[in-house]
Amino acid sequence: MDTRAIAYDCDGTRLTGYAADGAPHRKKPGILVAHEAFGMNDHIRARTRRLAELGYAAFALDMYGAEGLSLPEAVSRHVTLMSAPGLMLARASAAFSVLTALPGVDPERTAAIGFCQGGITALELARGGAPVRCAVGFHPGLMRPAGSPDQPIRAKVLMMIGDQDPDVPPEDRTAFAAEMQSKTVDWQLHLFGGVGHAYTNPDIDRLNRPGYGYNAAADRRSWTMMLALIEEAFEAPAASGLEEHR
Amino acid sequence: MDTRAIAYDCDGTRLTGYAADGAPHRKKPGILVAHEAFGMNDHIRARTRRLAELGYAAFALDMYGAEGLSLPEAVSRHVTLMSAPGLMLARASAAFSVLTALPGVDPERTAAIGFCQGGITALELARGGAPVRCAVGFHPGLMRPAGSPDQPIRAKVLMMIGDQDPDVPPEDRTAFAAEMQSKTVDWQLHLFGGVGHAYTNPDIDRLNRPGYGYNAAADRRSWTMMLALIEEAFEAPAASGLEEHR
Repeated sequence: MDTRAIAYDCDGTRLTGYAADGAPHRKKPGILVAHEAFGMNDHIRARTRRLAELGYAAFALDMYGAEGLSLPEAVSRHVTLMSAPGLMLARASAAFSVLTALPGVDPERTAAIGFCQGGITALELARGGAPVRCAVGFHPGLMRPAGSPDQPIRAKVLMMIGDQDPDVPPEDRTAFAAEMQSKTVDWQLHLFGGVGHAYTNPDIDRLNRPGYGYNAAADRRSWTMMLALIEEAFEAPAASGLEEHR
Repeated sequence: MDTRAIAYDCDGTRLTGYAADGAPHRKKPGILVAHEAFGMNDHIRARTRRLAELGYAAFALDMYGAEGLSLPEAVSRHVTLMSAPGLMLARASAAFSVLTALPGVDPERTAAIGFCQGGITALELARGGAPVRCAVGFHPGLMRPAGSPDQPIRAKVLMMIGDQDPDVPPEDRTAFAAEMQSKTVDWQLHLFGGVGHAYTNPDIDRLNRPGYGYNAAADRRSWTMMLALIEEAFEAPAASGLEEHR
């Protein structure tokens, strides 16, 4: 497998993503992987390689230009991403351009997935009109960043949250559903009962934060659901699932 | 494939179910299939055969002792099932005994699935203490029948509803989540956005009922999710997934 760090630029900020591809000489679907509020780390790189092992080309973006941040530093950068109008979409779009330019990627067949903050990132990319066929979130927040665009969403959207996630209050679920419904999106919302925030992150229990916790069953099931959706999306021409869905 | 009608009795009422098994001489997981409020029909028999084609033994129960009912007749029987204390559970339990006695069924590995009213039936069977490993509902109602028992649920529960289903108001979702949470069940609730009631039933559009409608994408995805859960449940010893889940 070919894995490498790739430096790129977004409006003057130097960012460093991570690409994995088992067969870079051959065009295949490409998947953008968006990290948690903690930033790029080994967990995200491992997920990126898992996708490459399954036959996809994958590129993990970098929203921060820094790695190994302390928790307060990460929270501060997360807040900036959510509150500076258009910043999250600009950084996601820069990374999407890197993905589609990779030699092993068929730019007509792409998807975006993300964990925690990365779920917001994947959805924001779809809101911004990127031609991703799917936007998938694992324990995503469901709030919208400042300046979030309101154009139609063509991607199939799948958000999978823990029912006990303290960062996703019921009113956020309601607002998410209303937004998707108003845009006639092919969307799904999955609730894992008794499960909290960050259920895919095996290191999260170290935080000792109430309502946060790793959950092996939800981790495994959410990965399976994501794979099923991208397989469905990549088999059909872009947006064809949507017509059938309506 | 061996398919046959099987007559059985529940407290003096004669019922007629439908069994399908591709290899009746060999023990395998058995799946109980619970019909919609319309009663047993060709749609349910087809689903039962699909399970047998996948290597399971399947038995479609009969809640009514009659087939080909008019809509008012079916509604009347549905209301009786929901309002006569213990009636739904008694009929589901009688059918479960038929399933586990089938020559091709390993009684230690069973699951219950159901459509519409049948989703309530599958869950009620789990509430009543039947050792099913999963209870899966396709566009189920989430209300509880009269006399619904409150003992612990050991089954993995998966309910998949259309977000626009007029028969599942938000307060029913909330009550369902609270009940599952109070019983510390391994449970999941999936919402298909923009989808209404009876999304798996290709004949439902003939009813011309607002909020009811077939949806090919939700039909296909819900079937895939059900299969993933029963595969997970039958690979592990009973209830082992629950320990991991907590």
